[in-house]
Amino acid sequence: MPESVETFDGWYALHDFRNMDWEKWQLATESEQQAALEEFSTLLEQWQDIEDAKNGSHALYSIVGQKADLMFMVLRPSMKDINILENQFNKTAMAHYTQPVYSYVSIIEKSTYSKRETDPYKDPAMLEKLYPVIPKSDYICFYPMSKSRGEINNWFTLPKEERGRMMYEHIATSKPYTQDIKRIITGSIGLDDYEWGVSLFCDDPLRFKKLIYDTRFDEVSAKYAIFGSFYIGHLLPANEIHAFFK
Amino acid sequence: MPESVETFDGWYALHDFRNMDWEKWQLATESEQQAALEEFSTLLEQWQDIEDAKNGSHALYSIVGQKADLMFMVLRPSMKDINILENQFNKTAMAHYTQPVYSYVSIIEKSTYSKRETDPYKDPAMLEKLYPVIPKSDYICFYPMSKSRGEINNWFTLPKEERGRMMYEHIATSKPYTQDIKRIITGSIGLDDYEWGVSLFCDDPLRFKKLIYDTRFDEVSAKYAIFGSFYIGHLLPANEIHAFFK
Amino acid sequence: MPESVETFDGWYALHDFRNMDWEKWQLATESEQQAALEEFSTLLEQWQDIEDAKNGSHALYSIVGQKADLMFMVLRPSMKDINILENQFNKTAMAHYTQPVYSYVSIIEKSTYSKRETDPYKDPAMLEKLYPVIPKSDYICFYPMSKSRGEINNWFTLPKEERGRMMYEHIATSKPYTQDIKRIITGSIGLDDYEWGVSLFCDDPLRFKKLIYDTRFDEVSAKYAIFGSFYIGHLLPANEIHAFFK
Amino acid sequence: MPESVETFDGWYALHDFRNMDWEKWQLATESEQQAALEEFSTLLEQWQDIEDAKNGSHALYSIVGQKADLMFMVLRPSMKDINILENQFNKTAMAHYTQPVYSYVSIIEKSTYSKRETDPYKDPAMLEKLYPVIPKSDYICFYPMSKSRGEINNWFTLPKEERGRMMYEHIATSKPYTQDIKRIITGSIGLDDYEWGVSLFCDDPLRFKKLIYDTRFDEVSAKYAIFGSFYIGHLLPANEIHAFFK
Amino acid sequence: MPESVETFDGWYALHDFRNMDWEKWQLATESEQQAALEEFSTLLEQWQDIEDAKNGSHALYSIVGQKADLMFMVLRPSMKDINILENQFNKTAMAHYTQPVYSYVSIIEKSTYSKRETDPYKDPAMLEKLYPVIPKSDYICFYPMSKSRGEINNWFTLPKEERGRMMYEHIATSKPYTQDIKRIITGSIGLDDYEWGVSLFCDDPLRFKKLIYDTRFDEVSAKYAIFGSFYIGHLLPANEIHAFFK
Repeated sequence: MPESVETFDGWYALHDFRNMDWEKWQLATESEQQAALEEFSTLLEQWQDIEDAKNGSHALYSIVGQKADLMFMVLRPSMKDINILENQFNKTAMAHYTQPVYSYVSIIEKSTYSKRETDPYKDPAMLEKLYPVIPKSDYICFYPMSKSRGEINNWFTLPKEERGRMMYEHIATSKPYTQDIKRIITGSIGLDDYEWGVSLFCDDPLRFKKLIYDTRFDEVSAKYAIFGSFYIGHLLPANEIHAFFK
Repeated sequence: MPESVETFDGWYALHDFRNMDWEKWQLATESEQQAALEEFSTLLEQWQDIEDAKNGSHALYSIVGQKADLMFMVLRPSMKDINILENQFNKTAMAHYTQPVYSYVSIIEKSTYSKRETDPYKDPAMLEKLYPVIPKSDYICFYPMSKSRGEINNWFTLPKEERGRMMYEHIATSKPYTQDIKRIITGSIGLDDYEWGVSLFCDDPLRFKKLIYDTRFDEVSAKYAIFGSFYIGHLLPANEIHAFFK
Repeated sequence: MPESVETFDGWYALHDFRNMDWEKWQLATESEQQAALEEFSTLLEQWQDIEDAKNGSHALYSIVGQKADLMFMVLRPSMKDINILENQFNKTAMAHYTQPVYSYVSIIEKSTYSKRETDPYKDPAMLEKLYPVIPKSDYICFYPMSKSRGEINNWFTLPKEERGRMMYEHIATSKPYTQDIKRIITGSIGLDDYEWGVSLFCDDPLRFKKLIYDTRFDEVSAKYAIFGSFYIGHLLPANEIHAFFK
Repeated sequence: MPESVETFDGWYALHDFRNMDWEKWQLATESEQQAALEEFSTLLEQWQDIEDAKNGSHALYSIVGQKADLMFMVLRPSMKDINILENQFNKTAMAHYTQPVYSYVSIIEKSTYSKRETDPYKDPAMLEKLYPVIPKSDYICFYPMSKSRGEINNWFTLPKEERGRMMYEHIATSKPYTQDIKRIITGSIGLDDYEWGVSLFCDDPLRFKKLIYDTRFDEVSAKYAIFGSFYIGHLLPANEIHAFFK
Repeated sequence: MPESVETFDGWYALHDFRNMDWEKWQLATESEQQAALEEFSTLLEQWQDIEDAKNGSHALYSIVGQKADLMFMVLRPSMKDINILENQFNKTAMAHYTQPVYSYVSIIEKSTYSKRETDPYKDPAMLEKLYPVIPKSDYICFYPMSKSRGEINNWFTLPKEERGRMMYEHIATSKPYTQDIKRIITGSIGLDDYEWGVSLFCDDPLRFKKLIYDTRFDEVSAKYAIFGSFYIGHLLPANEIHAFFK
């Protein structure tokens, strides 16, 4: 029986994709729109206070193409926080101008194929990875993924060293991209339908394509990766929200 | 022809997932909301009476992410009880503020690869497993699953001893989790689209992920498990229902 | 080229699954409800006259879980009868309180791997199977299925004797269940998306699970069966219809 | 690299499946219904003029089961004709009582594995096949299909002679059915999601099942055929349309 | 680890498929229709100015069959331009008479298996391919595709020379079609759910079928191509838009 790998877990994550009902929004009176926007802004300010207090993080995106119009990604210390937050949002007036289209529930996860000498929860570099501020890059690329359990190519029956070797090869391929692409890897085994969520952040979306293309030839991707849908979003900072909804 | 395994069956189970139509709910008048909540509370009290009389059990959950808003899991002595219960709920006012999104029909099932010396239906430990009270832990993790009938990896053509060996390995891996994760396994061959339903109960949802990750390397999971969607819910006790709907 | 098997065909079958729009139903006035129920009852009486005249058969079920609320199964001498019947139902007031969710079009089929000495259409036992009265057992279990044409396990490239051998093994496994589970097998190659429909009838739904579990280890099921969705329904006799809709 | 086969192409085809919104239809006033029917009849008369002038063909069907209520199959000389026709229909009042559920875009195709001595476009028998009148049989059976490109069974890597041999075997199996089942084969590589559309016409729908069952054991079907959904329709001649909508 | 291939990237592309709500459109007043058409025409004129200034390109199509009614394909220098454009369109009155049904996000991509001697971004022929005017042919054929990562046939584990050899064979097969079929290949790894988008342009849609049929026997297609849906559209030039909506 192959050995599993130790993982260290940080904040819980929710990726929440929604469509706008633009017609309903435009049919709303100016005061209805105003009230919805104010309530929404107040919510975002509360989220910002939480981020400022280092108790979580969030970002809002305008998704490209018809897969969704809006996505918010939020990080929180507990699953209950995530649950409360979404229920809270669902009761806002703004939520009623949106339709949910997809969501992803996961938790920030760092794993290692090598032995750790020190307590990761006391390592500042590790803590920054487990409890990060979501990078405010211009673009996000999100996709969920699993490792294959095919009849021939089965990740979970491989010896740990074999898996480790492939992961290191994979890391080597993505080396040239680490400067300009930040990433948050979240684990979702038992929490959602794929095994991991990948959130990439960069100012140039072409870099996403080049990174994922180059790594697709890695043995771990070529033979063992199962990809869900890919979502590209453009950051929607607080000060552009009114323009977005105008 | 490989031999099947003897199973012992207890209460029937329904997992019923629903979305809330929050806008419709908020547009309802206070007295409409009041009436719907009272009718719903009365129904829950009847269910509680049944649980108190040890004729069944139930629990209500707030589901995390967009897969559903609410889920109720109910256990009942007969399939007809389940059928009556859902038709009853569907006619309540509260049901009209929800949309069904997924359900699972199954029956509590205990199976054994070893020989039983005694009548399981007279064994108090077994009876508690067949006719349980749903643990009122903070979180539930529900997922349906089947065993593979692939062209190479086919669970149902394996000799019984081989299957037994893998199941014992699997039980060994989950040993460290038995203290804090309670489980109710239900069978659904012929009753619903997967072969089994797994309901896990724990106060810490991270434990679900760790258990399912560790066991994924077991031969039985790695080669033979087909998983449906994973649902995470936070318990909604009777005294928090009014707050949930506010 | 493997040889096909001779089949004998009886009545055409329609399984028609529908959801109730309970809210719309409850918002209807009492006289609207009354009119819809009367029109529906009249239709069912006509169907009963046809059953009494041995020109067809039908039964109505309350489906367990969210897959559907209602299902009617009807048997008729011709496809045109089926077509007229559904168009007739679709124009009733009751139909407008339902939404179609699934249907299955097939024809009762008996096949044999052994040689027949006598004309099956003159054999009373065979005629009863080809033109049956739907058993009025408490429960139905319906599922469509196909035989695998996988790259390794391909039913349709096996020699006829090999197929016959597996079918006889399969019949032997289900022997202990023939007393309490009645079955109607319908063929749907060229008529609907799976190759066969299986309708099982029993007063105890647990028997469905036990039968299908035991037979899953048969070579024909383990290696060659592709199953669609499983539907469990509770019989809704004419004298309980008013209670159902109340 | 295996050789492709020469194909000869005739009229473009559209199969257009729709559901009726019977409730909306019944709620319409008699004069609205009258106007919709008259406009629709006028359209059908124009289509009939085109058929009479041998510039195309069409037929209307009532589909059995819930997959659709209505289907029209039309043949036209150009793709633009098809495009204009559907846009024209979509703007009629009748279209607003229907919901589109499925469509198939293809072109009549004759292919041959043997050498042709003469110009097929001057061969009257071939011309009749490329520019046919849709048979006005009682029933249609339509399904789209592709040839497998599996990892073991791959039609497109077989030598041409091998493919030819299997096609001839297939033709031999269907020989006994050619008298009572007419067929129109359309190609849709690059035009729609499967590679071919098969439209069968017969007065007895049981013949469809028998033909497709018998041929399923042919090597070409057993190993290389991928089937889409099967649709069975009953012809709706012009003089029965008023009855259908009543 | 196989080597990836260098790619050169040009303009970003959006293919945006929509259904018309013809009933809603016809129920609109003439002045509402007029206003919607004028606003839409103004938008298209802005797009035309951008095309005239060589800062992008666009085309509008009437899609054949029920997959969609309308599609617009747009090319723009940045992903943000694409995002702004779709949000802008979504807020127009015309958008509210449409429902989104599918979209594809990608970027024009040229790749080469041979060594380049010169800077492709200074090669006029290359620049024309990276920043093209969309051909105003009568028909478009669009489909997304990926290369297989099957357990036996895996494109991404093949040596680069092997992939190059198959691509050259593929180019040779399509040679006879290069005169009358123009193509724009876009890459979408990391941007959308398939790896590439193929947009073909021709005055005769039968040529699409013949090209894709002939190339299906190429090793690269037969063994390694995974095709999404195929969409056929007829060009809708600015001067025919009023007629289309009439």
